[in-house]
Amino acid sequence: MPDPMSRTILHVDLEPIGRRVQIEAGQTLLDAARAAGIKMVAVCGGEGWCHTCVVRPLTGQFSDLTQPEQDELSAKRLSAGLRLACQAKPRSDVKVELLPESLATQQRLQLEGQDAGYAPASLVEAIDVTIAPATLDDLRADVTRLQDAVQASTGCRPTFPHASLRDLSGQLRAQQWTARLGIRQAPPDGEVVAVRAHGTPLLGLAVDIGTTKIAAYLVELATGRTLARAGAVNPQVAYGEDVISRIAYAKVHSDGRVVLQARVAETLNGLVAAMCTEIGATRNQVADSVVVGNTAMHHLFAGLPVEQLGQVPFVPTISDPLDVRAGDLGLELAPGAYIHFPANIAGFVGSDHVAMALSTGVWETDRTAVAVDIGTNTEVTLAKGGGKWSCSCASGPAFEGAHIRDGMRAAPGAIERVQIVDGQPRLKAIGDQPPIGICGSGIIDAVAELLRTGVIDRKGVLDKQAPRVDREGEMFYYVLAVPSTTGHGRPIVVSRKDINEIQLAKAAIRAGIDILLSEAKVGYDEIDDFIVAGAFGTYLDIGSTVRTGMFPPLPLDRFKQVGNAAGAGARQMLISAGRRSVAAGLARQVAYVELTVHPEFTRKYLHAMYF
Amino acid sequence: MPDPMSRTILHVDLEPIGRRVQIEAGQTLLDAARAAGIKMVAVCGGEGWCHTCVVRPLTGQFSDLTQPEQDELSAKRLSAGLRLACQAKPRSDVKVELLPESLATQQRLQLEGQDAGYAPASLVEAIDVTIAPATLDDLRADVTRLQDAVQASTGCRPTFPHASLRDLSGQLRAQQWTARLGIRQAPPDGEVVAVRAHGTPLLGLAVDIGTTKIAAYLVELATGRTLARAGAVNPQVAYGEDVISRIAYAKVHSDGRVVLQARVAETLNGLVAAMCTEIGATRNQVADSVVVGNTAMHHLFAGLPVEQLGQVPFVPTISDPLDVRAGDLGLELAPGAYIHFPANIAGFVGSDHVAMALSTGVWETDRTAVAVDIGTNTEVTLAKGGGKWSCSCASGPAFEGAHIRDGMRAAPGAIERVQIVDGQPRLKAIGDQPPIGICGSGIIDAVAELLRTGVIDRKGVLDKQAPRVDREGEMFYYVLAVPSTTGHGRPIVVSRKDINEIQLAKAAIRAGIDILLSEAKVGYDEIDDFIVAGAFGTYLDIGSTVRTGMFPPLPLDRFKQVGNAAGAGARQMLISAGRRSVAAGLARQVAYVELTVHPEFTRKYLHAMYF
Repeated sequence: MPDPMSRTILHVDLEPIGRRVQIEAGQTLLDAARAAGIKMVAVCGGEGWCHTCVVRPLTGQFSDLTQPEQDELSAKRLSAGLRLACQAKPRSDVKVELLPESLATQQRLQLEGQDAGYAPASLVEAIDVTIAPATLDDLRADVTRLQDAVQASTGCRPTFPHASLRDLSGQLRAQQWTARLGIRQAPPDGEVVAVRAHGTPLLGLAVDIGTTKIAAYLVELATGRTLARAGAVNPQVAYGEDVISRIAYAKVHSDGRVVLQARVAETLNGLVAAMCTEIGATRNQVADSVVVGNTAMHHLFAGLPVEQLGQVPFVPTISDPLDVRAGDLGLELAPGAYIHFPANIAGFVGSDHVAMALSTGVWETDRTAVAVDIGTNTEVTLAKGGGKWSCSCASGPAFEGAHIRDGMRAAPGAIERVQIVDGQPRLKAIGDQPPIGICGSGIIDAVAELLRTGVIDRKGVLDKQAPRVDREGEMFYYVLAVPSTTGHGRPIVVSRKDINEIQLAKAAIRAGIDILLSEAKVGYDEIDDFIVAGAFGTYLDIGSTVRTGMFPPLPLDRFKQVGNAAGAGARQMLISAGRRSVAAGLARQVAYVELTVHPEFTRKYLHAMYF
Repeated sequence: MPDPMSRTILHVDLEPIGRRVQIEAGQTLLDAARAAGIKMVAVCGGEGWCHTCVVRPLTGQFSDLTQPEQDELSAKRLSAGLRLACQAKPRSDVKVELLPESLATQQRLQLEGQDAGYAPASLVEAIDVTIAPATLDDLRADVTRLQDAVQASTGCRPTFPHASLRDLSGQLRAQQWTARLGIRQAPPDGEVVAVRAHGTPLLGLAVDIGTTKIAAYLVELATGRTLARAGAVNPQVAYGEDVISRIAYAKVHSDGRVVLQARVAETLNGLVAAMCTEIGATRNQVADSVVVGNTAMHHLFAGLPVEQLGQVPFVPTISDPLDVRAGDLGLELAPGAYIHFPANIAGFVGSDHVAMALSTGVWETDRTAVAVDIGTNTEVTLAKGGGKWSCSCASGPAFEGAHIRDGMRAAPGAIERVQIVDGQPRLKAIGDQPPIGICGSGIIDAVAELLRTGVIDRKGVLDKQAPRVDREGEMFYYVLAVPSTTGHGRPIVVSRKDINEIQLAKAAIRAGIDILLSEAKVGYDEIDDFIVAGAFGTYLDIGSTVRTGMFPPLPLDRFKQVGNAAGAGARQMLISAGRRSVAAGLARQVAYVELTVHPEFTRKYLHAMYF
């Protein structure tokens, strides 16, 4: 007879994949990952000696450390509270983070985006100098000696900030009194932000911190070439899925802000290290950086207060561009390197939106254009005849797979395309694996196809008589994939509640678009370009978005899917001081429209709920 | 029969007093302090329950922690390795630091110094603003809102550095949208370094970091008034008594620089906290600071490399003035406050020398003047007809009591004055206590009196026939105090070796003075003013210094003892932006004379050894 305890059902939230599964008490976290169809690295098959299936417990109770864990995990990892998935057994509902190295396949991140096309004119210039060694006849200080050399060759006498002095004297002697100085343009004569060996290329780091995903790029400053790209899940996901819950976390926990800031800095340091290794560089070569993100991500990473971002009227501490020494935020680049944070517009329209507008050129053309960047918050901008309007729509995390019964993020095994042909769904899962869940583009496709084939009506109600429609209690659902075809042997379904979540999300976006159009007195037919930016937007089927009513009914050739345009904008600002000024200037011209108090919002929102 | 172990003799160095005593194995550190005549706070009489006699072990082996220590010391203190003097027993020769709070009487520090007399024109100005609260109709960011308010009232639009943003939004709301901003003049429009409530006075911190002692002052920026003073022993004493041994410590230990920096920052934070408590202020009011010190102290506290300061040709990393955000060095002031480090001149002539020259005006008069600041290194400057010369003399630690048989620092019980009348020494000890040792001014007095009364000849040799002269093996000595008159019941003597240490020290100083005079072609009779600066210099008997030949034979009215002139100069620069520029300009005009390679040095040095 089984132990009665073993019948207890526990819920396990698996981050950063965003999947919730049920296990029985006594099962391990590795069992939970397997139940979710997630492939973890576990070479030893669960015996505990390969220490590859590392997880970070976030919430809940777990069994005690086992001997294999004590033997195989380093002291550092043990003190950080890490566990082996094959050993740790939940004792309550738990949330855990699967470390990137433990996943056999990585979550898909969108790192490309429209390319710059701007001539590089970086804020940091490299100058090679050779100076006379210090002798008893020439007792100038090291800094004076370098300043004299730069002045002799360029006429400018740059300052040395404190951060660039810490290792200067030793390095100068080790390099036999030669150095390449990275000199950042700053009034009056520049400041030295990096000291390397003659000829070492100086690099720049561009980062887009999304609520869910972080994209990073390493760029050669002299040429503007992107040398490496890397992506990671925003580690703050473990502390709250959306912006509001993270603001709450920062408010409730005395060290909340510090923890959230440090986790992102740590992740960025890891990405920089990995990219540097890939191209044979060192972090000391990274002499400049630009970081964009929504306003909450901006404030959290910049170490600024966020409480006021969670309260009406949601004003930022600072909207103007901000330059912070990288070391002050725990980002390990060249000792004097800065992080440039471009301007943000409002509490929910951040510098990622400005960067997106910059790289798509939407604020700099004569055409009438709409640009949307879809995420947990979806930012929309409209430009017409020099006027610029922006708003933020609370589209929620449904497109990230949250609040969707079989939802998950865009990771291997996620259904991303759905067609219904002759009543039979045809599915495409990421990585062409047997499906284990459904991601945002898949659920939109599914809803559009169910609508087209009449399985749901314009209110979103499922036809109870239609094939593949079934029920569980009061909840009707459509069976997208039967157990024999899935990666975990259970069905994958679209429920009435899932459809409703999509209705709420798409209505929020459409209402925002419609209100901006009415503010600017622009009709649908006047829109020349409809730009869809962002990782998620890239994978969307535009036909499905129009069919579901998320986007207005324009000819399909007006739509342009541009990928991570925010990252591209960050790269532009990284390699061009001029583009930073342009971005700051444009951001100031934008009329921000606060939807929550707009008189038309509720009516348009309710109307947009219909398909 | 006593345990044979108990006959083992161990040496105990007691810092920061600078006394070495012998104890028998099995005796406690409290016994050692008592043997040295040092009064420690020990309310419980050594039973271990009052936890007042706290010490920090620096080197050597000690007995295990006792139960009373585990019960009475906090976890933080235990993990910092602190012990109770009444419990810990040395198991080898040891060095320990007596914590300030554990000493019944404090070491005497010189905090005064000639006063400024300059009209306050601080770099940081206070402006009170009241702004409209954020509403949905007025969504300006907090910073924009404040900038608009300042611009409306002053025409300037100051920047907010990152450090000033961390708590801004919460504070602004807590203060009902009012604030006093401390705005530091910086091109083009100033930057906000402090945010307080309306009307809160803004303060400044002036610090003189000596190799042995630290003096700190809290000044009201608007009025220039000194509101509080505090002093402490430089905690780096525990890591090396002089500059060279600290440079070696920083070089040999991988975290040496970090440790030495942190210990000073920690001590300064303690002094600031104590001074703030004394005047009812908070550290967030301290909106500016100036720190002076010799070049090694400057580099060590500024976190700069020091290895090159210990190697020919001893060049600093930086000689020009340096402004560093206080937080970057672990100094807890207003979040945006800077530390201004004035210029230094060479590896062994630092910003304390510049500050001394500034406050004494020696570089700004038409008179021919010599100024000396006596310490482990003694800096000398000479000004004549617009010319300025400076040098550094390796006078060694004898004046601090080191290498002197019964030497100690200027703490209670130290003999500071000696007269010999009718062959009988008359002694004055600090605090009018029974003497326990002899400090710098006492030993100079003693040597001068022994010379005057013919007990020693001009080579420093003791007259073996003279009264009170005795011997221990080959070493002759003069008995200054007999056991019945001392605080520890042992004699206090001046040995032939002590006299020789004083000869070495005074010869180094005199040779430096003479070389500067010959460089400038100035005769003794041309010297209008001979300024003696520094804590030690204040307590010197000038007659004794001339009699021993440390200073040249000038009429006594040419000498001026000005106290801690370096601290006074730091205060001047704190309250006057103009004086900072003057200091920087004057420092650049000084001709530094490197004594060690000067062709005349050896001859003059050997000559100056004679009395």
